[in-house]
Amino acid sequence: MSLSGGAGTTIIIRLEIDTKKVTLGQIATAIGDAGGDIVAIDVTRANRQMTVRDMTVNVIDPLQSDLIAKAAGSLPGVRVVNISDQTFLLHLGGKIEMASKIPIRNRDDLSRVYTPGVARVCMAIHEDPSRAHTLTVKRNMAAVVTDGSAVLGLGNIGPLAAMPVMEGKAMLFKQFAGVDAVPICLDTQDTEEIIRTIKAIAPTFGAINLEDISSPRCFEIERRLTEELDIPVFHDDQHGTAVVMLAGLLNALKLVGKRLEECKIVFSGIGAAGIACTKILLAAGAVNIIGVDRFGVLTRGTDYGQESWNWYASNTNPNDETGGLTNVIAGADVFIGVSGPGVLKKHDVQRMAKDAIVFAMANPSPEIDPEEAEDYVRVMATGRSDYPNQINNVLCFPGMFRGVLDCRASRVTEKMKLAAARAIASIVGDEELNEQYIIPSVFNPHVVDRVKEAVIAAAYDSGVARRRRTEITQTDKTDKGDTYLVP
Amino acid sequence: MSLSGGAGTTIIIRLEIDTKKVTLGQIATAIGDAGGDIVAIDVTRANRQMTVRDMTVNVIDPLQSDLIAKAAGSLPGVRVVNISDQTFLLHLGGKIEMASKIPIRNRDDLSRVYTPGVARVCMAIHEDPSRAHTLTVKRNMAAVVTDGSAVLGLGNIGPLAAMPVMEGKAMLFKQFAGVDAVPICLDTQDTEEIIRTIKAIAPTFGAINLEDISSPRCFEIERRLTEELDIPVFHDDQHGTAVVMLAGLLNALKLVGKRLEECKIVFSGIGAAGIACTKILLAAGAVNIIGVDRFGVLTRGTDYGQESWNWYASNTNPNDETGGLTNVIAGADVFIGVSGPGVLKKHDVQRMAKDAIVFAMANPSPEIDPEEAEDYVRVMATGRSDYPNQINNVLCFPGMFRGVLDCRASRVTEKMKLAAARAIASIVGDEELNEQYIIPSVFNPHVVDRVKEAVIAAAYDSGVARRRRTEITQTDKTDKGDTYLVP
Repeated sequence: MSLSGGAGTTIIIRLEIDTKKVTLGQIATAIGDAGGDIVAIDVTRANRQMTVRDMTVNVIDPLQSDLIAKAAGSLPGVRVVNISDQTFLLHLGGKIEMASKIPIRNRDDLSRVYTPGVARVCMAIHEDPSRAHTLTVKRNMAAVVTDGSAVLGLGNIGPLAAMPVMEGKAMLFKQFAGVDAVPICLDTQDTEEIIRTIKAIAPTFGAINLEDISSPRCFEIERRLTEELDIPVFHDDQHGTAVVMLAGLLNALKLVGKRLEECKIVFSGIGAAGIACTKILLAAGAVNIIGVDRFGVLTRGTDYGQESWNWYASNTNPNDETGGLTNVIAGADVFIGVSGPGVLKKHDVQRMAKDAIVFAMANPSPEIDPEEAEDYVRVMATGRSDYPNQINNVLCFPGMFRGVLDCRASRVTEKMKLAAARAIASIVGDEELNEQYIIPSVFNPHVVDRVKEAVIAAAYDSGVARRRRTEITQTDKTDKGDTYLVP
Repeated sequence: MSLSGGAGTTIIIRLEIDTKKVTLGQIATAIGDAGGDIVAIDVTRANRQMTVRDMTVNVIDPLQSDLIAKAAGSLPGVRVVNISDQTFLLHLGGKIEMASKIPIRNRDDLSRVYTPGVARVCMAIHEDPSRAHTLTVKRNMAAVVTDGSAVLGLGNIGPLAAMPVMEGKAMLFKQFAGVDAVPICLDTQDTEEIIRTIKAIAPTFGAINLEDISSPRCFEIERRLTEELDIPVFHDDQHGTAVVMLAGLLNALKLVGKRLEECKIVFSGIGAAGIACTKILLAAGAVNIIGVDRFGVLTRGTDYGQESWNWYASNTNPNDETGGLTNVIAGADVFIGVSGPGVLKKHDVQRMAKDAIVFAMANPSPEIDPEEAEDYVRVMATGRSDYPNQINNVLCFPGMFRGVLDCRASRVTEKMKLAAARAIASIVGDEELNEQYIIPSVFNPHVVDRVKEAVIAAAYDSGVARRRRTEITQTDKTDKGDTYLVP
């Protein structure tokens, strides 16, 4: 995880200035000497002796801001109240808000959206609870739930610190797919307590996105909630990654002319994402998958003391290969890494099969640097946006949730995930497909619709879609369904 | 609770029409004869033999819609698919939505609001969790939590059916006070489970509005959450009602020239609202309060088998009056009803003191009809919008929550509630005050600001405001605080 603030950095330094001891010119000189370019000065408070000014300063790197603050703060009569940059300013007060779809202009409006008019709508739902999917925001609302235990690459930073990520995810849900997502950051990391809490708040939501919950708890939480709730529960770190990885791999294999069934696929990192990726590959037809974690290759008959690894060992590695990554990588067609930086060495890549495919998805530093691998690998993908072929969950979750909400799915089946992966892959046309373009950009405007349609079709095939199929062919504006008859 | 849909009723009847068996003219005639006035016809689906049409029909009363549907449906070749009216149409898909405050236009935006840029914001909060109040939507977000056990006058209709009310409340929060409120409808009515769940989801929110939870569980839930959470927890059915009642009563007493301390106040209905109203009156200086419930007057020394009633008996009725309402109403200056229709009789009102004040707040039918009481009562208030002096919680909760969020209060104190009540009362100027105008309209544009300011001042006085006072004098736009220093 790079902690740089991205391009175009403006910082704002708030200074408390004793106007008898220092001039603005001296301050400007100090900031300029430290590499800052003042673009604006705003007075926020003033009295006879003191002024508080916000200095807006362009810098090349936000890390410079410390130097600039130090330079200004070392002047007599200057106190640095705070320093901010664009990223922090963007986050002030949060990035999302709740909005009314309808203004309440007068008493008549009030009597429709609230008491007394609302009572008839309540009673209609009370008579037939499935109407909640039509007459309330459950129709379109997902919870983005985390316990803050495995946030980005930052680890167990807790629920409050996880909020900015969940809000960001809610923004993506809305912007890409029109889904109303509510961040729910839990003040517990107990598996049973998490399950209980999510079940308790479920009536409000049409779907649950589990996010950044550490393994192995995430498996049990997702499994139990899927069994015990009647709305889809989707742990994005697992299945989002798996779907997008498969989409990229399908296109990579098409490009090199290999069949998934015949490939030797080596996995590095058997955590939540690694297991989900393996499962979807098996569902897609892969046969020869070999998993490697810190302790080496997972082999049949070994007890790893953890259910998920034991499952892995019994369902992969059909030829009972042993040793470490360096052993099993020989002759592999595909390497998939969801582990850590530098795990895959140049000499490993050199021993892979012809037209090797490497998905080095560790973030921010991949299992092998693309520059180091490029001479030996035909297709390479990473989790990063600054190399070609980024495996990014944003390609999956907006369309996936749009789909399950639109067809009122009760769960996400393996079929639906496979359909989503194939839909994403299909965006890259045969004439466009090349080593640098196996997966569409997150800003590709066709992704969400294509994924949504595929997910809905697969949901009906799986028998988990609860909305009448005729209803869904119409737009929401004209579709008034037959589920909200005035009682 | 009146179940009429309010004024201006348009219904939409969707008909499946066999065009070989019936003409549009025959249908229009049938609808007209049944009292409907067709204003629009839209085709939603059509094939050679069948068309589906939405007939938009003006009616005087939505209850007519059944008759009209029956008339249309009895024609040969016509099937009524559904009937809808404006209130239901307004609710389609829910009344609220989550919105992004900032668009994600490109990769650079994405890298600020989501990974990798967001990581620095996460770590800043991880280092100092109080920054969540500045850098996340916790700054402005409240949960509106119900278990669906006591919704409006509808009773225990459950969490799904409660959603439209909670969404309506979220709309009011946003429109009146800019508060982002999330409806959370709980799939449990167990006291401990509710407490556990709200504690678990609390990190996302800056305040909790408990709503429509039945008594006596609501007392324990609010008390425990107030003790165990560091954000305000406010059961609106109790305290919102109490604050607005007190506001009205203060003005009514001013009008008749009586002092609260000297009044004999008779309460009917010792539920959640009755107890909260009594507590705020005691805090405001009332001395002689007598409570009456189904079993008669509450008297000291009796064990009622319920903590709240025992508290009530030991803290009211200082003169140990006994009997029923008809006994204790004699000579009363004030009657406050939060019970049921018709509890207060004309002969009761006749025996009250001169310049009697009656707050008959039972909904939708008050304890006594205003028409019946008007000859004997100087000031009358109800919970209804179609009489003068409506005691409506909307006067309190938007400003209350705006205030606690702005000063980052850790709880709501009695002082803050009293301040809110006095602020609401102060909106009605001395020159405006009269028997028909003791309380401002919910659409009065000054209410929220006045309540907010009073609540904030009282929060600092109570020592529960956690935001530095200097910060709060500035507007949010320029106030960048000192809590989000770039780490």
